[in-house]
Amino acid sequence: MSFTPRPSKTAPDTAIYDRRESGVRTYSRSLPRQFDKAEGVWLHDVNGGRYLDFLSGCSSLNYGHNHPVLKQALLDYIGADGIAHGLDLHTSAKQSFLEALEEVILAPRGLDYRAMFTGPTGTNAVEAAIKLARKVTGRELVVAFTNGFHGMTLGALACTGNAGKRSGAGVPLSHVAHEPFDGYYGPDVDTAALLDQRLSDPSSGLDAPAAILVETVQGEGGLNAASPEWLRAIAAIARKHGALLIVDDIQAGCGRTGGFFSFEGLGFTPDIVTLAKSLSGMGLPFALTLFRPELDIWSPGEHNGTFRGNNHAFVTAAASLRHFWADDGFQDRIARLGNLLEQRLEQMAEEHGLSTRGRGMMRGIDVGSGETASAITQACFEKGLIIETSGSHDEIVKVLAPLVIDEALLGAGLDILEQSISTELAPAASLSAAA
Amino acid sequence: MSFTPRPSKTAPDTAIYDRRESGVRTYSRSLPRQFDKAEGVWLHDVNGGRYLDFLSGCSSLNYGHNHPVLKQALLDYIGADGIAHGLDLHTSAKQSFLEALEEVILAPRGLDYRAMFTGPTGTNAVEAAIKLARKVTGRELVVAFTNGFHGMTLGALACTGNAGKRSGAGVPLSHVAHEPFDGYYGPDVDTAALLDQRLSDPSSGLDAPAAILVETVQGEGGLNAASPEWLRAIAAIARKHGALLIVDDIQAGCGRTGGFFSFEGLGFTPDIVTLAKSLSGMGLPFALTLFRPELDIWSPGEHNGTFRGNNHAFVTAAASLRHFWADDGFQDRIARLGNLLEQRLEQMAEEHGLSTRGRGMMRGIDVGSGETASAITQACFEKGLIIETSGSHDEIVKVLAPLVIDEALLGAGLDILEQSISTELAPAASLSAAA
Amino acid sequence: MSFTPRPSKTAPDTAIYDRRESGVRTYSRSLPRQFDKAEGVWLHDVNGGRYLDFLSGCSSLNYGHNHPVLKQALLDYIGADGIAHGLDLHTSAKQSFLEALEEVILAPRGLDYRAMFTGPTGTNAVEAAIKLARKVTGRELVVAFTNGFHGMTLGALACTGNAGKRSGAGVPLSHVAHEPFDGYYGPDVDTAALLDQRLSDPSSGLDAPAAILVETVQGEGGLNAASPEWLRAIAAIARKHGALLIVDDIQAGCGRTGGFFSFEGLGFTPDIVTLAKSLSGMGLPFALTLFRPELDIWSPGEHNGTFRGNNHAFVTAAASLRHFWADDGFQDRIARLGNLLEQRLEQMAEEHGLSTRGRGMMRGIDVGSGETASAITQACFEKGLIIETSGSHDEIVKVLAPLVIDEALLGAGLDILEQSISTELAPAASLSAAA
Amino acid sequence: MSFTPRPSKTAPDTAIYDRRESGVRTYSRSLPRQFDKAEGVWLHDVNGGRYLDFLSGCSSLNYGHNHPVLKQALLDYIGADGIAHGLDLHTSAKQSFLEALEEVILAPRGLDYRAMFTGPTGTNAVEAAIKLARKVTGRELVVAFTNGFHGMTLGALACTGNAGKRSGAGVPLSHVAHEPFDGYYGPDVDTAALLDQRLSDPSSGLDAPAAILVETVQGEGGLNAASPEWLRAIAAIARKHGALLIVDDIQAGCGRTGGFFSFEGLGFTPDIVTLAKSLSGMGLPFALTLFRPELDIWSPGEHNGTFRGNNHAFVTAAASLRHFWADDGFQDRIARLGNLLEQRLEQMAEEHGLSTRGRGMMRGIDVGSGETASAITQACFEKGLIIETSGSHDEIVKVLAPLVIDEALLGAGLDILEQSISTELAPAASLSAAA
Repeated sequence: MSFTPRPSKTAPDTAIYDRRESGVRTYSRSLPRQFDKAEGVWLHDVNGGRYLDFLSGCSSLNYGHNHPVLKQALLDYIGADGIAHGLDLHTSAKQSFLEALEEVILAPRGLDYRAMFTGPTGTNAVEAAIKLARKVTGRELVVAFTNGFHGMTLGALACTGNAGKRSGAGVPLSHVAHEPFDGYYGPDVDTAALLDQRLSDPSSGLDAPAAILVETVQGEGGLNAASPEWLRAIAAIARKHGALLIVDDIQAGCGRTGGFFSFEGLGFTPDIVTLAKSLSGMGLPFALTLFRPELDIWSPGEHNGTFRGNNHAFVTAAASLRHFWADDGFQDRIARLGNLLEQRLEQMAEEHGLSTRGRGMMRGIDVGSGETASAITQACFEKGLIIETSGSHDEIVKVLAPLVIDEALLGAGLDILEQSISTELAPAASLSAAA
Repeated sequence: MSFTPRPSKTAPDTAIYDRRESGVRTYSRSLPRQFDKAEGVWLHDVNGGRYLDFLSGCSSLNYGHNHPVLKQALLDYIGADGIAHGLDLHTSAKQSFLEALEEVILAPRGLDYRAMFTGPTGTNAVEAAIKLARKVTGRELVVAFTNGFHGMTLGALACTGNAGKRSGAGVPLSHVAHEPFDGYYGPDVDTAALLDQRLSDPSSGLDAPAAILVETVQGEGGLNAASPEWLRAIAAIARKHGALLIVDDIQAGCGRTGGFFSFEGLGFTPDIVTLAKSLSGMGLPFALTLFRPELDIWSPGEHNGTFRGNNHAFVTAAASLRHFWADDGFQDRIARLGNLLEQRLEQMAEEHGLSTRGRGMMRGIDVGSGETASAITQACFEKGLIIETSGSHDEIVKVLAPLVIDEALLGAGLDILEQSISTELAPAASLSAAA
Repeated sequence: MSFTPRPSKTAPDTAIYDRRESGVRTYSRSLPRQFDKAEGVWLHDVNGGRYLDFLSGCSSLNYGHNHPVLKQALLDYIGADGIAHGLDLHTSAKQSFLEALEEVILAPRGLDYRAMFTGPTGTNAVEAAIKLARKVTGRELVVAFTNGFHGMTLGALACTGNAGKRSGAGVPLSHVAHEPFDGYYGPDVDTAALLDQRLSDPSSGLDAPAAILVETVQGEGGLNAASPEWLRAIAAIARKHGALLIVDDIQAGCGRTGGFFSFEGLGFTPDIVTLAKSLSGMGLPFALTLFRPELDIWSPGEHNGTFRGNNHAFVTAAASLRHFWADDGFQDRIARLGNLLEQRLEQMAEEHGLSTRGRGMMRGIDVGSGETASAITQACFEKGLIIETSGSHDEIVKVLAPLVIDEALLGAGLDILEQSISTELAPAASLSAAA
Repeated sequence: MSFTPRPSKTAPDTAIYDRRESGVRTYSRSLPRQFDKAEGVWLHDVNGGRYLDFLSGCSSLNYGHNHPVLKQALLDYIGADGIAHGLDLHTSAKQSFLEALEEVILAPRGLDYRAMFTGPTGTNAVEAAIKLARKVTGRELVVAFTNGFHGMTLGALACTGNAGKRSGAGVPLSHVAHEPFDGYYGPDVDTAALLDQRLSDPSSGLDAPAAILVETVQGEGGLNAASPEWLRAIAAIARKHGALLIVDDIQAGCGRTGGFFSFEGLGFTPDIVTLAKSLSGMGLPFALTLFRPELDIWSPGEHNGTFRGNNHAFVTAAASLRHFWADDGFQDRIARLGNLLEQRLEQMAEEHGLSTRGRGMMRGIDVGSGETASAITQACFEKGLIIETSGSHDEIVKVLAPLVIDEALLGAGLDILEQSISTELAPAASLSAAA
């Protein structure tokens, strides 16, 4: 996998989309190609273009596109008339997944969670998590964080910080308080202490919460990585105030930040965890809400959904867990790649007086403005690299390379990024040098 | 496809589910088998049992399990490394789906809709629909109906009538008024007129709504079929009061009630339509919100979601549209099957002094109580027929047979139902005769 | 008190109001005089005009203006430096009021209520009532009725039907369902039965309510008088479904409909009652929430307010209770006046093909439109009679004469009303006769 | 007025209260006497006890009890049959009040406000203020502050910080964010800057607010006085983000902090101001919402209320404005008294290692815990001084002496406070000394 990107030069005809697809679409605007096939780290368009994928379906394709092991497992399953849709019936595919989850993921980590198969989208998993926390505690408020992103349905959207997304609701988004994330007020302000102060004060106006909902690394919010200390403090605050700690691991989990869960080794255990994106291993819709068995007070069917058992996804998910997580090899690989990524981004940042963000293979570089970031990603795209932005003002260029990438190709992609940054930041630099 | 059911007698070991799956699961309680494979109208369990499927994934499998045409299309696509996950990028699979939607469905029906690919669950499609209606009208209230079912995320759950589901929310469900559905107050009360009276009265306390959200036949709510007159009245009321009419066609659409859309030929056109369940044709997660182009005022990305373009589902959905809906054959078939179903259910109802509900191939029989209905469906299961209940008290035995079933097998399944009803209702009858 | 009205012909200078008073004011628009003094049934303006008052401060002056007994009691109290403001301290004035309430009102009627002194406005009393019902039941929904009016603060406003008032909120008004009042759907529809049906149906979407909040005669909503049967049914429904019955007696109580409470003799006892308006007897701000002692689960100070003990109002209220309600004389008088009023209004209605509304001395006549009603009340005003409108479209001319009026003056006022109706309705009549 | 307090030793019979008054009452618990008469700074109980009043009706009696000038004006008005209740009609009493407001208060301060007479309680004035802000801006969120207190009706209660009060609501309190007040995070954290950061960040989750609602000195919240710099910053932030600035001057206004408005001379002008408590001058229910004329977009009657024009209060309020505020004498007096109060409290604080709070004649001393504060105020009460507490944990002993008190009596009251503090804090001190 060491050949080079080969971008197409022409955008395809988009008449059918213009006629029939809602203007709500986004990625097709900044990446105006029609894609067709994909394997590993590569996306192919209909004009023969080949793109190195540093977006990875927003971290839904941590194992790359159509990984041969997963693909074969799925082909075999479909070929044998495996059940595709089984509501929440017991199926062999579900059994296999649960066994893999238990054996490969939970047991080795000493975690005792029950799995709830929600509708197969992250937002459904979050809705289930906060419903459960409200049900268990009898409280209504959820504490979420600045720059948090948790989904688009009303319950999850209320927990999401982004004003553009929030304005779509058309009704006020209630029952959620957004508190400052780690570092939000700068390195000297301990925002966990601020939160504790307000929760401890009966006149603060901050009601006792059902849950504290946190991403350990904020994906859409700008790759802000919380420190282990802060996260432990948040976990302690949740416990102290009778709230459940929910880690939304939809983007940061499944290896993106190093371990299978983003909170591994940080010294705390969430009460509830949400997973989606790379969980199926192949980009199929799949979401999961995990929680401590004592919290499993749902009545049968109290929260349901037609597609809550996506058997195709069970198959690929089970295969991915057994293939990648049965030993430490993959985790070590992510660590190596993550170090390389960190080093390269730090170098770029230093050169241009910028700063980096993130953890593991979930890192980005703050280029100062959304305009600059967009110029850089466009320049990358013209060189065959698909890469996107995040953050309050889309000012963070984020690297979400597949975790299966080899070091050479990771380096090659980062070379493209480096050149693009230099090109886009140079004019300003020379201008200011000239001034 | 004329062999007979062959139920297993023993339930499989459920230890892994007891240990690892949330108690929120339901169908595995009333159908305690582990299923493995499925084709057409048949579900197979791991002990060699064979079940006739009159549940069809709650109408998600209108074309049966693993239909060979759809299955082959999907195998080919995966085999050729077709993109599995593409966010909302333009892909060949999406193009094919949109073209099939336009050519086979919209154009022949004179419908001009834009398609919004929401997260691939019905509840996400409903959330998008009501968000859009609120955004377009600048109003907040949604009028939904008694016994309506629209999903489990907070926005859709607020529109759902079921108290058991609603209680899961843990917060009050706001911004929705639940009005009486057609026939709710008996055949003599025109509930559309009641609604119009209140909306026309500036002191009724019923605020001007953003949308009226209706199922033409209520799936979970008990197979209540609204009359065309009532639906036209509701459409007129929406228009009169500046609200958008949303038809939630997630369960009743895709052929279940006769046409592709459940509202075809009824003399009105919704502003917004939601689809999911059988849309992919093969039970894959897929959902769609359709709306008049003038309503497409979304900002790019204002409502998004990781799995909003499920390319595998695009492939099977496009194949299903072209295979089943290119001419009138399938629709004629549904009409024939629906007549047979109606006739048989009416006969059973008459014999036992019961009543029937529904339209097309979405029909049921009211057996008076949830206990009786449960006894009947259990008796059916022991004879190899999978069939379930719906309604306020689960008192409706509902027949959601695959639309691809042949008449002989439909008859065979209904024979099992008839026997089970006779057995379960007989004791009460003889007891009352004896008294 | 048998002299005649003597309206002023000129409106006074309003510059100070135009400069300094908010445009939210209303009555000064339709009654453009500056008033100065008042006694009994008469209002005097600064230009020497004299007006017969059939508005009575919207039923806040049931005993007329400045009744000599109450006035003297207040003068004595103030003259002796009686405490004016005592928060919720025990004061002699409060003791006297509570004793009068117990002896004159509660004991003779066999009612066992505790009194909560809320902030001295009706809306505060309603807020306290619904807070308490929510606290006692642990539920959130309040069932209120079409055309109900309960106040302007957010909790009470949510219970109010009027769209113009509701739109002032600026936020959605939640946690309240507005159900059809008695007769709302015409004489043949039993709206209590409709409510019971929905509350009994677990899929109706109508959540189990904390309270049902009802006016026995809707003041602002158009003088709709509920039948005793309907009210008893509502009381039974509340009990059946575990909700508290709140009677908002702010406008209909204190004698307006006959007894001290509007629900006397109707065969049910509310759990909670709100009083305000004529409670002080002299138009002073005063409000009260009464409830069964078992419901008194408030923590000290859980609901408070600076003016929650208006000692001046305690004094006049106690005096009014002892003066008017110690025996049956006043009640008999209201009955006689009410009969006269009913007779005269029926006569006017018959003559013009109109209909009447109301009960006791709280009656009105539906003149078909707000324009007509306004023309009639303007014509009355020009003849020296102050009278106003209510109803969804302000189409009801309402007679809220002081209860202390003598029959001659009541008759004189009704003569003015009758002439005004004839004059205003005649042109239309002759026009249609000519056509 | 230099005689000394003379407390009663026996509590009166409370049977009538136990039987008939709700347990929600509070002050009668800590001040268990029955009060009867009052003049100036003195409260008299029915057993001949005499108490110096450092509570002043929670700042509703800034001019003392039954001030002779106000009392005479009211006696004259009532004696002459002045209108007591006039809805929102133009009355001579209202005219006089508006003229006094304009001439004595607004014009000399260069303020151009319109007056809205809301229901005569502070909470009603706050509800009107936030309604108007929401209406004007089309936004829903209100930013309020930690420890803020704004009233008990649902809209105002949502803005109140106190958990005990909030829990009474029985429904979630929405559409309000509670931000840290000045100094909340200690002297080194500029909480205005934190607020600005979040409002400026489109991903903070803090929606654009309709209003920022602030007390310059928090009465119930613990006498926290915001610095002029912080208040100016908040005013600038409101303007920058398109929100209206509402100063809730219900407790701090009417001279309590020095000027008529608490914000005078601080370098900013609120868009909306609420007044109540001492506004009538004599403790009568009266409230006012003032706002810039451009904001007066109310429809007639959009917000109303039966007692929205309390004519008795107009009379005493007008008299109080003309008597106390026509020249600088009263303001100078408050300044002198405030300095004396500050000096004495600082001295006590220093002696016992405590800290003081507040501004002008609205000051208190933080004694560390609610238990200590309660012991101190009880000790004062036994010596004939009525004084109360505030703060998150009722740990602040607050001095709200009448502004008409003479220096000797203020000193005498403070002597009692000083002794009580010494007595109550001494044992702990000697104990710790002994340890």
